[in-house]
Amino acid sequence: MINVGIVGGTGYTGVELLRLLTLHPKVKIKAITSRSEVGINVADMFTNLRGHIDLKFTDPADAKLNKCDLVFFATPNGIAMKQAESLLKAGVRVIDLAADFRIKNVAEWEKWYGMQHACPDLVAEAVYGLPEINRELVKNARLIANPGCYPTAVQLGFLPLLEAGVIDINHLIADVKSGVSGAGRKAEVHTLHAEASDNFKAYGVPGHRHLPEIKQGLSSVAKKMVSLTFVPHLVPMIRGIHATLYAKLTQKINLQALYEKRYQNEAFVDVLPTGKHPETRSVRGSNICRIAVHQPQNGDTVVILSVTDNLIKGAAGQAIQNMNIMFGLSETLGINQIPLLP
Amino acid sequence: MINVGIVGGTGYTGVELLRLLTLHPKVKIKAITSRSEVGINVADMFTNLRGHIDLKFTDPADAKLNKCDLVFFATPNGIAMKQAESLLKAGVRVIDLAADFRIKNVAEWEKWYGMQHACPDLVAEAVYGLPEINRELVKNARLIANPGCYPTAVQLGFLPLLEAGVIDINHLIADVKSGVSGAGRKAEVHTLHAEASDNFKAYGVPGHRHLPEIKQGLSSVAKKMVSLTFVPHLVPMIRGIHATLYAKLTQKINLQALYEKRYQNEAFVDVLPTGKHPETRSVRGSNICRIAVHQPQNGDTVVILSVTDNLIKGAAGQAIQNMNIMFGLSETLGINQIPLLP
Amino acid sequence: MINVGIVGGTGYTGVELLRLLTLHPKVKIKAITSRSEVGINVADMFTNLRGHIDLKFTDPADAKLNKCDLVFFATPNGIAMKQAESLLKAGVRVIDLAADFRIKNVAEWEKWYGMQHACPDLVAEAVYGLPEINRELVKNARLIANPGCYPTAVQLGFLPLLEAGVIDINHLIADVKSGVSGAGRKAEVHTLHAEASDNFKAYGVPGHRHLPEIKQGLSSVAKKMVSLTFVPHLVPMIRGIHATLYAKLTQKINLQALYEKRYQNEAFVDVLPTGKHPETRSVRGSNICRIAVHQPQNGDTVVILSVTDNLIKGAAGQAIQNMNIMFGLSETLGINQIPLLP
Amino acid sequence: MINVGIVGGTGYTGVELLRLLTLHPKVKIKAITSRSEVGINVADMFTNLRGHIDLKFTDPADAKLNKCDLVFFATPNGIAMKQAESLLKAGVRVIDLAADFRIKNVAEWEKWYGMQHACPDLVAEAVYGLPEINRELVKNARLIANPGCYPTAVQLGFLPLLEAGVIDINHLIADVKSGVSGAGRKAEVHTLHAEASDNFKAYGVPGHRHLPEIKQGLSSVAKKMVSLTFVPHLVPMIRGIHATLYAKLTQKINLQALYEKRYQNEAFVDVLPTGKHPETRSVRGSNICRIAVHQPQNGDTVVILSVTDNLIKGAAGQAIQNMNIMFGLSETLGINQIPLLP
Repeated sequence: MINVGIVGGTGYTGVELLRLLTLHPKVKIKAITSRSEVGINVADMFTNLRGHIDLKFTDPADAKLNKCDLVFFATPNGIAMKQAESLLKAGVRVIDLAADFRIKNVAEWEKWYGMQHACPDLVAEAVYGLPEINRELVKNARLIANPGCYPTAVQLGFLPLLEAGVIDINHLIADVKSGVSGAGRKAEVHTLHAEASDNFKAYGVPGHRHLPEIKQGLSSVAKKMVSLTFVPHLVPMIRGIHATLYAKLTQKINLQALYEKRYQNEAFVDVLPTGKHPETRSVRGSNICRIAVHQPQNGDTVVILSVTDNLIKGAAGQAIQNMNIMFGLSETLGINQIPLLP
Repeated sequence: MINVGIVGGTGYTGVELLRLLTLHPKVKIKAITSRSEVGINVADMFTNLRGHIDLKFTDPADAKLNKCDLVFFATPNGIAMKQAESLLKAGVRVIDLAADFRIKNVAEWEKWYGMQHACPDLVAEAVYGLPEINRELVKNARLIANPGCYPTAVQLGFLPLLEAGVIDINHLIADVKSGVSGAGRKAEVHTLHAEASDNFKAYGVPGHRHLPEIKQGLSSVAKKMVSLTFVPHLVPMIRGIHATLYAKLTQKINLQALYEKRYQNEAFVDVLPTGKHPETRSVRGSNICRIAVHQPQNGDTVVILSVTDNLIKGAAGQAIQNMNIMFGLSETLGINQIPLLP
Repeated sequence: MINVGIVGGTGYTGVELLRLLTLHPKVKIKAITSRSEVGINVADMFTNLRGHIDLKFTDPADAKLNKCDLVFFATPNGIAMKQAESLLKAGVRVIDLAADFRIKNVAEWEKWYGMQHACPDLVAEAVYGLPEINRELVKNARLIANPGCYPTAVQLGFLPLLEAGVIDINHLIADVKSGVSGAGRKAEVHTLHAEASDNFKAYGVPGHRHLPEIKQGLSSVAKKMVSLTFVPHLVPMIRGIHATLYAKLTQKINLQALYEKRYQNEAFVDVLPTGKHPETRSVRGSNICRIAVHQPQNGDTVVILSVTDNLIKGAAGQAIQNMNIMFGLSETLGINQIPLLP
Repeated sequence: MINVGIVGGTGYTGVELLRLLTLHPKVKIKAITSRSEVGINVADMFTNLRGHIDLKFTDPADAKLNKCDLVFFATPNGIAMKQAESLLKAGVRVIDLAADFRIKNVAEWEKWYGMQHACPDLVAEAVYGLPEINRELVKNARLIANPGCYPTAVQLGFLPLLEAGVIDINHLIADVKSGVSGAGRKAEVHTLHAEASDNFKAYGVPGHRHLPEIKQGLSSVAKKMVSLTFVPHLVPMIRGIHATLYAKLTQKINLQALYEKRYQNEAFVDVLPTGKHPETRSVRGSNICRIAVHQPQNGDTVVILSVTDNLIKGAAGQAIQNMNIMFGLSETLGINQIPLLP
């Protein structure tokens, strides 16, 4: 059994980690911490867990996290960078679901996240945990930077095109739509039901924190700097990300075959048949990314549709996928749920 | 392994049966029938099942249902009553998720359902599959009438009060609210998103088909005829039933203790602590019924709040719970999912 | 023209007052105050008002409210009671959309609202602004306590039965459902879209602040103390209240005729034909209350269905209706919008 | 007074025409037709109209439409083309809210709409009723082809860029999102609440009927053929369109000034200040189009955000705007409502 600790379990990625890890056959949750909720039963806060989990939130100081095999950080940005080093020294492996170790260029990170990095030395070591790209590196990683929700859907969508070198990388467009849970379990006016329901809007068009993360990932695959326009939108739904990606083709290619081949051995990427359109609910509650490839009117613009559950493949599920790889387990263990539909 | 057939798998109870049975460790789905969709891949219609199930809809005539150990009817009312008899003769057990065998009084059934009963002889034999009441009968049943969604939530809510004989059974009120999936996967104007979303209404106040079913169940427990006012409402949500039940207390009693004791050994009924209010999402995607008991201002009116997922404890999950009991399996096998929240 | 001031215009009742008063032919909005938003354009906060209103939020100290003919308080509870007296002394009439002057029993008010009343002397003078009951008193009132949203829907529903004296007033039940905007424009976790959407729950069953207000109103009409069980619920929709009311009939009566007669001259109460069910969207954006009367299975329980838009007939619209009456205008002036459907 | 007839009033554009025309000070609705609902009170079908309209659906044969000054067709595609000619001959002006007269190239129209055009002669005469482009032509038109919902939002968004000639017209992208009412009031499975709620998807990527209409409009402004990729999406909301438009700038220009100048005299186009993002609810229930202009990271890609209410500026409201222009009335008469928020 893998002894696991969770730091910061009161948000949506926290409750999803709990839901998935509770039924994972090779995991024992040793501690879940929260400064604000010390002593509260986890199942009193998240009533879906009643009868399944018997654990209280503990103070980080009392949680004996350094006795764990693995610690997940489901915290706001800026927490893991302060605690990861001492855990690693104690031999604990770390998966950070926040952004602290995602951007290799520390100055760039500090600009977008508005704080000084507490642990720049570890940034280089951290493995960006997108298994479909970095599986081999994940196997031996001590520290995983778990990808953001938008970056996961966008990178998986563009990946085959970039690897094949068949698009103009100077004019990539990612028009992406997210459910409201992407904003987290924070009390804010603009994500109230009365504000966000029956409504649709773009936000962050001048610049969004996931932009440098996506550009870094795409550029790494393309092996040169890509230029990307990234426009996130807020959808009146709870979960789900839908990325609509546009690129200009620079040569003729069988797009459907390209995608099917690239992902044929990936358990969590499903390429739909020609002509289909994935919908977010088809992955609700699961770790799957479904992708469709289109070339409208047989023109030179390729349109990729990529959907994920932002809390699972975009957060908690991908973290567990990384854990499975790190500990030599079957990659799908405990995260093979069938999406909930309707 | 239990060899299972499903008749009529294109509705919401059908897809839920498929989702749950696919991962059930003791079940093999042999056939799923649909006259209208013969030859279509199940996973093409329900894309959540892609990668998990490799089965086509077959014509009932080709499905060899009489070779199965068990057949589920996930059909409209009036189908199972025509086919159950021959299956039973072939030694196949039957669980009908529709209403054909729920009402013992055949004339009453015919009045509410507007058709002649094709098989009145089997009505008496059929066991009403609410395990919390009829577990022993279910064990040996050949034919299960699986309860309706409203009746499940209402009966589990009233049950302890009726068994204890502490309420006036002449003035029961069930004010019940259902998500839109309760209306089924049928193309109708009033359940369109543009009609049902951001809206709330009662319907069927003069009379609803679940009224006689609920009254039969409650009267059977009370051992005399109860009088019930039942008002169903349509909630702009996908899944979930919330029953708010009112009764006049006829004696003093510790209500919280009564409910906790009654359900202490029930895996799928969860009595909340004093003062709590269950929410439908706390059971979303699960077979659980959560109940809270209130006595506002310490007056003589008891208020019971009872929530279920209408497609699971109110349909497919309860059917599988019955199957587990009938075949001597652990009652929770394959239906122990943790609800999906948020 | 009536010169109007609005105190506290940053909530949902505030923006609705602005929307309706901006197009009211006899009103000039002189000032809208907000301590936190001083200097901000109203239309920058509420973008629906762009092009229709050219006003900034001002500090209450600078607003010259005592030069107005009428001041609306669209503030949290506890504000109007501190400012009403000096305005009245200056000859300004006041309509409080919060609860400060609704409960005649000051001790009762203090218990439910958890604060000391700053101005108990004015409570007796304040007129409870439900025009369908108190129209004559409203005409000459200086100070109006505008009813709460739940109390409006419930009182209009029970009114004809109580006036006619045909029900048992010791066992009234009000099972009421509200859209999320009823909780106001406040940043709170439980009303986030990701929490409240696709979900349904009761709340406040042990006791809700609108209970004493409703009981006071019903008892006043019944001319003796009624006993009421009031259970509010949260519906995943933006606007709308649906009250389902239950009472035991004590004599035979033509219920439909009773309701039609009682409301035949009321512009804002619409009694539906026999057998119909009102839906909340049928009053969305309007000042109308629609009511249907049912007597299921011809039994002794009467079921009343009453719907309103909580922000209009339950708040801003009713306040303007009161204003129209106070200033001798046509009662429907400026609030005769047709509901928005779909 | 303008005597108006409405052909086909049972869909969403029909009920919106009724809502708006009922309160229009210069309009008298003489007849509304529906073959399927003859004799039914309009207000029985659309309960929001109760108390505001006293009209029954009539058979087209009895409606005396040729006595009207103006007839609106709120019918499916293919109806107006059969009836417009005889009405025009009788001196009646016609506004078709469907697509029959929108595409000048009849062969192209027949390909996309899958039927033979019944009246190709009138196609040339018909004026495409986008007042912001064709106001002068609308004034004297006998026959208006009222634009589609997607085409309105997209054309108003691209218009200033095309007129100024500052973008590469060979790679336009329109990523557009629509509320479910855009699919009409038709009983279909994929727009059921249980299917469309809490879900997001693209559709029609290989080709959508609004593509030729948009391309025709944009090409006409650009004075040469544009190349456009158009991807429509379905949003789980009732009303609203959000177009996210992408183009490559070919020269430096002050985009904000360009847009503000182009639309400074347009009553129904609102250009937001720099850096803002319009949301669909800010135009809910109104005839307004709100637009924001962005140039992310000061790169060469311009991003335009354009929102409308698909049933109003995208249908009924724009039709009335055209009517106002045709009959010499103030262009905003009767359609100057403030959007409903929240």
